[in-house]
Amino acid sequence: MERTLVVDTVSKVGEQVLLKGWVATRRDHGKIVFIDLRDRTGLLQVVASQQLAQDLHSEDVVYIEGLVKARPEKLVNPKLSTGTVEIEAQKIEVIVKAAELPFDLGLTDLNLELPTLLDHRSLSLRHPKIQAIFKVQAVIIDSFREALKAKGFLEFQAPSIISSVPEGGAEVFKVKYFDHQAYLSQSPQLYKSLLVGAFERVFSVNKVFRAEPSVTTRHLTEVVSLDAEFGFLDSWTDVLDMQEYVIKYIFDQVTKKCARELAMFDATVPLITTKIPTIKLRDAQQIIFERTGRDCRSEKDLAPEDEKEICRWSKEIHGSELVFVSHFLTKKKPFYVYPDPEDPQYAFSVDLLGRGVEWSSGGQRLNDYQQILKNIDEWGLKREDVELYLQSFKFAVPPIGGFALGAERMTMHILGLKNIREASMFPRDMERVDVRFSAKV
Amino acid sequence: MERTLVVDTVSKVGEQVLLKGWVATRRDHGKIVFIDLRDRTGLLQVVASQQLAQDLHSEDVVYIEGLVKARPEKLVNPKLSTGTVEIEAQKIEVIVKAAELPFDLGLTDLNLELPTLLDHRSLSLRHPKIQAIFKVQAVIIDSFREALKAKGFLEFQAPSIISSVPEGGAEVFKVKYFDHQAYLSQSPQLYKSLLVGAFERVFSVNKVFRAEPSVTTRHLTEVVSLDAEFGFLDSWTDVLDMQEYVIKYIFDQVTKKCARELAMFDATVPLITTKIPTIKLRDAQQIIFERTGRDCRSEKDLAPEDEKEICRWSKEIHGSELVFVSHFLTKKKPFYVYPDPEDPQYAFSVDLLGRGVEWSSGGQRLNDYQQILKNIDEWGLKREDVELYLQSFKFAVPPIGGFALGAERMTMHILGLKNIREASMFPRDMERVDVRFSAKV
Repeated sequence: MERTLVVDTVSKVGEQVLLKGWVATRRDHGKIVFIDLRDRTGLLQVVASQQLAQDLHSEDVVYIEGLVKARPEKLVNPKLSTGTVEIEAQKIEVIVKAAELPFDLGLTDLNLELPTLLDHRSLSLRHPKIQAIFKVQAVIIDSFREALKAKGFLEFQAPSIISSVPEGGAEVFKVKYFDHQAYLSQSPQLYKSLLVGAFERVFSVNKVFRAEPSVTTRHLTEVVSLDAEFGFLDSWTDVLDMQEYVIKYIFDQVTKKCARELAMFDATVPLITTKIPTIKLRDAQQIIFERTGRDCRSEKDLAPEDEKEICRWSKEIHGSELVFVSHFLTKKKPFYVYPDPEDPQYAFSVDLLGRGVEWSSGGQRLNDYQQILKNIDEWGLKREDVELYLQSFKFAVPPIGGFALGAERMTMHILGLKNIREASMFPRDMERVDVRFSAKV
Repeated sequence: MERTLVVDTVSKVGEQVLLKGWVATRRDHGKIVFIDLRDRTGLLQVVASQQLAQDLHSEDVVYIEGLVKARPEKLVNPKLSTGTVEIEAQKIEVIVKAAELPFDLGLTDLNLELPTLLDHRSLSLRHPKIQAIFKVQAVIIDSFREALKAKGFLEFQAPSIISSVPEGGAEVFKVKYFDHQAYLSQSPQLYKSLLVGAFERVFSVNKVFRAEPSVTTRHLTEVVSLDAEFGFLDSWTDVLDMQEYVIKYIFDQVTKKCARELAMFDATVPLITTKIPTIKLRDAQQIIFERTGRDCRSEKDLAPEDEKEICRWSKEIHGSELVFVSHFLTKKKPFYVYPDPEDPQYAFSVDLLGRGVEWSSGGQRLNDYQQILKNIDEWGLKREDVELYLQSFKFAVPPIGGFALGAERMTMHILGLKNIREASMFPRDMERVDVRFSAKV
């Protein structure tokens, strides 16, 4: 008999089916055993006799033959996509036995400490609510690509190994590269910019690496960066518009394709009424001062509490849980930042904030070769460290801008997760690469 | 006026348009100048007066206003997607001036040595024929994902930083990871396998790294691996079927979406009549012996000349430019390889060969926990180096298999490129990370 997927049983009432999956839970009720069977499409209730079910334990891989029966209306389980049916088991074959579990995987919420979940990552990833995180993440990433392909962007594969770190920084990982020193890329910024000279519009989904020397709830050493860059800007605000289009597209897709997953977290995508509001850093600081009395008006950046406050303001005044903050200080930004001609100490750089935290950064970049050369000198960088980048601009690149979103951060803040580690299948930090280093000693 | 893309001019005969792009070539004919304008959608002929065109040089970024005119039938250029029209320029604005080019970018073929192309990568990537390579590559990668999503596979992001190298090997890059030693992943094999325990069907498009200590035409230190792995195999041949489905899907998409790009290389996707033939290693060696007199029948693998010969055989006898070779020696394969029960010294491992070279490798993997433990000991590996992997199988994984394709190799062999470096935007090898190391000293 051909295998039937769990999700397809709802349209097969009265039919004999062969199911394949894992025993998610087992509940004994006298002579009857209720089994939740899990496959890649969801959970399904199976009813079996004690005899048929006698050897079944959690996470055993089983093949089950049985009859699909409609549940009486009062027994329909609205939480299951298959809640209208159940299977009357006729034959159960244990294909692979599982060892005894270290914790109960059958609870709706695991309620385990994060280190425990990560120490047992291969097991905790089997839990439906944890799986939901990565289904949402896959849709976020795929929607990012779809949105940009529809606008004529070409996907490229950004390099991971780089030979120099033009912007310096202690937070870079070193790689022994034959007889040379190499590094792991912290951002594909220079590559995506130079490619605009060739392909005009490019995007990449790529790993970036930060040797973050602290353990926080929002930093990992290896994350997935969603990068876009494009040429022929008419205005620096084209970068905001493109980013808003991409974000809205992602939100729409997540809402459509992940309704069940969002519901598991009691989550919704951030609210945007019509347009994401944009506010300059100095104006944001003034508003924060007026609302809270906290005077951050001469700070070069927003502190975490300021980010939270301006998000509150945006939601209250504009009905938007997302807000663009622009015009950061030119000298505090990388050499390629584009100064606002009206007041060059501030730049066409922009952060997207949402739900109190930063979601992305971007802006217009310099495209004038002479100005770039000048800035490289002024910023104290070496021209030979950015050779391919300079080469592109030497041979003319149109007005250019772009942005980068973090896949894990988006996943975290859409679902309301408390720790970014939850939004990475295999989170890496100072203390852990799969297994905690201390556990290895 | 709104910008019109080059490709859209063919449907705008008689209209005024604003074009934005680069001067790809300039040809002076007395009082008239012919300009090929390039944007992300292609090339377009612009006719301008000497006066309008006086300051124009190759690679200048220009905005051109003009009238779209149909070309007389005898002047239609079938090589251009816009060959039926040309633009009569009325206004030309140079937005960004380019420096003088080190070589003529306007030739149909660049005819430059590869090191020159790579030393000038930012420039050579502007050449239409080189751009075509990466348009084909983007379609290959995207089609790989589409094919697997349609079969219920979940995309995951395979880690790059790993904490141990279970299979040892000198060809691994070391990363200084805070106070620890870490490495760059050579393959997501163990991750994709362990995830089958959770998601049943997974794929990833990810970087893999090999510290290949030699400079050949078919190795890079950083490549894009297209990985798929799935559970509930009924037979090891399910792996062949899935791979064949994916390959055919990719070929179909490349043929449909990249007709112009394939034509530039006078290339077609490999021919498959109905099914990719499968032959065991020992049978392949026997055939090679019979066809050539070269006796490789006791070798553990096919040498390059053997791969070429069995591909010739496959094309002649089966009309297929692709052929699966299976049943390599169990002991020469990794610890997770699945021995054929009928003759356990040979395994359910399979390479896909095409046009004389290897395209992919895959096969069924062990899923029995005890057998895996035993093999890890026999292969001389340490259990603590594969902790998450073992954890997955301890809690039951169904019969499992998968495969991995190299994106650069596929691109190379579909287009008939001579060197894999041509199929990577930023190829890395022992001597080069963007810039040649010797050039940096």
